Amino acid sequence: MYDIVIIGGGPAGLTAAVYARRAGKSVLIVEKGTFGGQITWSPRVENYPGFASVTGVELGDKMLEQAMAQGADTELEEVTGVRRCDDDGLTVFCESGAVFKARSVILATGAKPRPLGVERETELVGSGVSYCAVCDGAFYKGRTVAVVGGGNSALQDALLLSETCEAVYLIHRRADFRGEQKLAEALDRRANVRFVLESTVVELLGEDELRGVVVERANGERRELAVDGLFVAIGGEPDNASFSTLLKLDDAGYAETGEDCASPTPGVFVAGDCRAKTVRQLTTAVADGAVAAISAIRWLDEA
Amino acid sequence: MYDIVIIGGGPAGLTAAVYARRAGKSVLIVEKGTFGGQITWSPRVENYPGFASVTGVELGDKMLEQAMAQGADTELEEVTGVRRCDDDGLTVFCESGAVFKARSVILATGAKPRPLGVERETELVGSGVSYCAVCDGAFYKGRTVAVVGGGNSALQDALLLSETCEAVYLIHRRADFRGEQKLAEALDRRANVRFVLESTVVELLGEDELRGVVVERANGERRELAVDGLFVAIGGEPDNASFSTLLKLDDAGYAETGEDCASPTPGVFVAGDCRAKTVRQLTTAVADGAVAAISAIRWLDEA
Repeated sequence: MYDIVIIGGGPAGLTAAVYARRAGKSVLIVEKGTFGGQITWSPRVENYPGFASVTGVELGDKMLEQAMAQGADTELEEVTGVRRCDDDGLTVFCESGAVFKARSVILATGAKPRPLGVERETELVGSGVSYCAVCDGAFYKGRTVAVVGGGNSALQDALLLSETCEAVYLIHRRADFRGEQKLAEALDRRANVRFVLESTVVELLGEDELRGVVVERANGERRELAVDGLFVAIGGEPDNASFSTLLKLDDAGYAETGEDCASPTPGVFVAGDCRAKTVRQLTTAVADGAVAAISAIRWLDEA
Repeated sequence: MYDIVIIGGGPAGLTAAVYARRAGKSVLIVEKGTFGGQITWSPRVENYPGFASVTGVELGDKMLEQAMAQGADTELEEVTGVRRCDDDGLTVFCESGAVFKARSVILATGAKPRPLGVERETELVGSGVSYCAVCDGAFYKGRTVAVVGGGNSALQDALLLSETCEAVYLIHRRADFRGEQKLAEALDRRANVRFVLESTVVELLGEDELRGVVVERANGERRELAVDGLFVAIGGEPDNASFSTLLKLDDAGYAETGEDCASPTPGVFVAGDCRAKTVRQLTTAVADGAVAAISAIRWLDEA
């Protein structure tokens, strides 16, 4: 029986582990893929304070080592569900059949950006394809980029990029944006922003580095846009489905909590990108990890 | 005229600078004391993800270098006020008479823990005296410590420390705790917690390292308690007084904002320990810095 089982070994989960271990709690971190989480996709991180420039893999490794040095246990398992079993705490079930017992659980399962679904998209992540303009936009200063999407995130990304990039194409499959009118108007006033509407990206050009995209209109007409970067901003997919009975999920599937990261289920806390919030960055993930751990520690201490 | 003037050069302000510069905004950070902020008091930081163990000074230096490498300007000045001057943006006034113009301002002025006011208290910070049990409690595993205070923070700190420390004295100047009854009861059940009520700390013992405290009762009776650590939990003092007309302050003087760190004054944002929130840690400070910067960037881009 662990004091705290943390599901998800990204920055939020690893930070929670450090806090919980330093408070003397027994901790197991269960990760289904790569410890370090989504950040390990990033070849260059320059917006995490304390590291002027670091690869995501290196940063993820440091966070994992720190959690393990503090005495956190780790398991590579895919969790399929968590259930309360009488007064006996919580049971964490894994696909392999493994079962872990916990007095409390922190869900830090993260969220995946929704991919375009174009061939070679995953291959080019970090070499022209990005899902985070706030994170990676600075690497495309003075260059030409495209943003795909029609919601507020896509419009905000295009505005942000237009400040530092030579030119920005905003590619959207419909004739109108779903995002706020005010944002669309602000973009309209930018001389270096071009709308590419009723169009979808059907092909990525370039070998090791992206050098352009092919867009297709509804009538089948295709054209090439020469771009160095493609920012995909069509939403995210939080990894909360297996825990929906324990959580209050918003329309997009993110877990709603109080500022203390507590879920509606006693002893279950939520941290990181899978939580409903406005900004999803490394900094906010580690903050959530600390807050969720402190809440879990207090919940255990006061029990 | 800077796009963003950041008041306060601690982790929140420095993080905001990195985000704002990477979005192409001109940035000035104005600090009145030490860049790096309160963290520079800490000889050993083990709960900031990515650094297994680091001195606060080293971590603060790294964050400052990162902000400067991204092109942030810095000034050592004490800001005395910020005023909106017609449509002409904001003006930042300094004690020296210096004046800076800004399109937007991020207040990241921090908060000071309220000191006991006992002789040699400041000298022993990091050598037995601490204002953060969550941060430093782990360094006192298996040892005897005292907590001073009677509010929820003090009671939570005592609970937390009782999990890993040999013994915990909870020193409070009154007969009753201001904090929740439930917490006091939980402490009462701990065999290794002793209440020292109607008592104040009047002297710190030990040369280079704390080795005990002298407490005095209302009747003048004094006794020594042998402790290795003293955790002061009698509240904090946010540095917001000079900006009160721009902000909505709570009863303790912290600035209330939305989740987006926006103040009620257009173009003025708040980040870090001076903001009203439940957890004040390095991780939450850098998260605030990122969120406030992203809000300020969007506010500027949409103007």
